[in-house]
Amino acid sequence: MPKATRTRIDDREALKKRYVEEAGKIIATEGLSALTARRLAGNLAVAVGTTYNLFANLDEIVVAVNGTTLDGLAAAIAAKPLPAESVEAALIALSDRYLGFVRKNRNLWQALFEMAPPGEGNEAFPNQPRFEALFAVVEGVLTPLFLPGEEAARARSARVLWAGLHGISMLALGQRLAPLGVATAEDLVETLVCCHVAGLRADRKS
Amino acid sequence: MPKATRTRIDDREALKKRYVEEAGKIIATEGLSALTARRLAGNLAVAVGTTYNLFANLDEIVVAVNGTTLDGLAAAIAAKPLPAESVEAALIALSDRYLGFVRKNRNLWQALFEMAPPGEGNEAFPNQPRFEALFAVVEGVLTPLFLPGEEAARARSARVLWAGLHGISMLALGQRLAPLGVATAEDLVETLVCCHVAGLRADRKS
Repeated sequence: MPKATRTRIDDREALKKRYVEEAGKIIATEGLSALTARRLAGNLAVAVGTTYNLFANLDEIVVAVNGTTLDGLAAAIAAKPLPAESVEAALIALSDRYLGFVRKNRNLWQALFEMAPPGEGNEAFPNQPRFEALFAVVEGVLTPLFLPGEEAARARSARVLWAGLHGISMLALGQRLAPLGVATAEDLVETLVCCHVAGLRADRKS
Repeated sequence: MPKATRTRIDDREALKKRYVEEAGKIIATEGLSALTARRLAGNLAVAVGTTYNLFANLDEIVVAVNGTTLDGLAAAIAAKPLPAESVEAALIALSDRYLGFVRKNRNLWQALFEMAPPGEGNEAFPNQPRFEALFAVVEGVLTPLFLPGEEAARARSARVLWAGLHGISMLALGQRLAPLGVATAEDLVETLVCCHVAGLRADRKS
């Protein structure tokens, strides 16, 4: 009896996993708007109602897909050590890996930001721990530029760099950069990182 | 006869203007996805076919709406002189006016970036001159930090600051900032601007 129950739970988990994989494929090839309960059930050859036995709603599936996208980014960033010669070099390498991942996974990446936000503002995101793990990597790289006790400023710098990188990558994905001239995404990243770090170093000296 | 022709052209231009205004209202209240030729014709009490006598397609109307959005932003930025005491103060004021405009016109603003890009990459945007006029304002503010001959670096700085501001405002509009903690859009703007400018000043000294 316990064994049978475990098997049923395993089946359920295996089917949920197949849902998330299939949803990821649909989003990756056609974008979030192509994902419907009917489409998903059709591809998996199950009844539409099965979806709602396994998930509260379609958003729950998208959250799971977004989780795997963020795990993929984390893996791409951690694939090899960051260059150790300077904070700038480490941040540029980190940004380039981020941009490379975003370009290779454009629809999956956009799905992260197309989902409705979680309620009125201050609740946690479903994938918040994954975002925070990514920020922690940036904060780790920035550590030599801050004194003990300056964690809030370091956290703000990490978020500014991420927001800048987010702006650059969204403009690059939307093909908004090239027509505006003078800069590729990589040029902008270099200017973003180098000026920010030079600014932090200057603050340290003054 | 010439008078009658002119009247007809004026009527045509007046009707086009009403189209753009009505499309702007629909986008502002319900977002770009709510804009359809049928809806627009219904609101204006004209036949759907009339739209295609006046415009090549719906995109042409959206481009015109986007043009008025960018004009509105330019007006909001130029409403009063920027503070003259420092480059930082001018850039922060400029950014705050930008953020204020974006927050007040969120759907119109998002429509600017939701439209498909113009072909394969390097063609001009329909509203490119308006974007360049906005960059010119930022470049003007940055001028004291660059030597003659450094126009390319100045242009790159203006675009990095804009990309950063774009990233911050898109995250703020999507309510992605608050749950990630530590920073409001205004805090991030201040860190973005101050570190960038400090970095440029440090480069100047070295």
